[in-house]
Amino acid sequence: MIALRDSLRKFVAERDWDKFHSPKNLAMALCVEAAELMEHFQWLSEAESRALPAAKLVEVRDEMADVLVYLVRLADKLDVDLLDAAAKKMAKNAEKYPAAKVRGSMKKYSDY
Amino acid sequence: MIALRDSLRKFVAERDWDKFHSPKNLAMALCVEAAELMEHFQWLSEAESRALPAAKLVEVRDEMADVLVYLVRLADKLDVDLLDAAAKKMAKNAEKYPAAKVRGSMKKYSDY
Amino acid sequence: MIALRDSLRKFVAERDWDKFHSPKNLAMALCVEAAELMEHFQWLSEAESRALPAAKLVEVRDEMADVLVYLVRLADKLDVDLLDAAAKKMAKNAEKYPAAKVRGSMKKYSDY
Amino acid sequence: MIALRDSLRKFVAERDWDKFHSPKNLAMALCVEAAELMEHFQWLSEAESRALPAAKLVEVRDEMADVLVYLVRLADKLDVDLLDAAAKKMAKNAEKYPAAKVRGSMKKYSDY
Repeated sequence: MIALRDSLRKFVAERDWDKFHSPKNLAMALCVEAAELMEHFQWLSEAESRALPAAKLVEVRDEMADVLVYLVRLADKLDVDLLDAAAKKMAKNAEKYPAAKVRGSMKKYSDY
Repeated sequence: MIALRDSLRKFVAERDWDKFHSPKNLAMALCVEAAELMEHFQWLSEAESRALPAAKLVEVRDEMADVLVYLVRLADKLDVDLLDAAAKKMAKNAEKYPAAKVRGSMKKYSDY
Repeated sequence: MIALRDSLRKFVAERDWDKFHSPKNLAMALCVEAAELMEHFQWLSEAESRALPAAKLVEVRDEMADVLVYLVRLADKLDVDLLDAAAKKMAKNAEKYPAAKVRGSMKKYSDY
Repeated sequence: MIALRDSLRKFVAERDWDKFHSPKNLAMALCVEAAELMEHFQWLSEAESRALPAAKLVEVRDEMADVLVYLVRLADKLDVDLLDAAAKKMAKNAEKYPAAKVRGSMKKYSDY
């Protein structure tokens, strides 16, 4: 992920685009890319979404790449270590959703 | 990222939540988390977004973690190598947006 | 919808919030509300989403109201007549998706 | 808005698309359209977003129409009266954000 961060820095510097990359704008761009990714699934059944045709998967992969690109770029701007943040968040989630209590159900647990 | 993927597999298996994790649902969850991240920035100026107070940054970091978690989970389900996908997408972008032509402007380039 | 527009103008003026209501910020807020609405559906099956419990429907209705509020507010700022815009868009869509050709399928039609 | 609802019913029936229009899918489509609308603003400054060129405004208007279309369609499916819901939500908001307390600031008020 460090290599990706550095390649993005170079890409942006070569184009003089850093001025557009406020955290506010990057958060918007990330959200737009997440929606473009989701668009591929909007009319599919869940079963269809588990068995994407190869051509569709190529497009989906590109959208996932875009999401990662903006997430890594935003993390760079805010000086956030993404993998460390995710590890800490998962530790919180493990406490918040004890396996014994939530097993097999998401009824009461809206945000996970 | 492999470690995160494996920890998510374990987390989900312990809770018997895999049945909810169709790619369609994961794409939705990713989009919801991206919007929750963006919400922190919606009333801030760009300048304010570049200078977040420490307490706000903690919340933002947690939302960024959630985005990464669902992205890694979706990648696992679709068997996508995220870093490889991002490297390939950046190579495409370098061709699509030649530095000499787009320098300093995003006028004609809506998706980057 | 005119009454709603006027009540929003008054609400915002009384709070001196107009300075936050740039079209950019309103578009972000609209997107955040749309995601909050969607969040209620993310772990439901399509069948479950067709039969929401009454308590859930109350929450969903509030989120739909928020979406409308920001849409009407944005339309006011951009001087857009929403119902006229929708009528014109539907006329375009009728040409773009001829009933005889697309009947029963959304395979090739990604944006509708 | 009743006329729009009826025209959408007819449009969907003629194409046999009702089977795709579960509330879950409509909420996704609404969110995708809201993101497409927002995309027009993502690299603009707030000032630029207040002074859109005419050609851009035409595109923005079409995206706003799409948002309204899916919102009205979802409301039809869930039997929600949108204008009534918005009026009730604004009454709640007036209590939640007393003008005297929040005047000129959004600091503590994340969702409005």
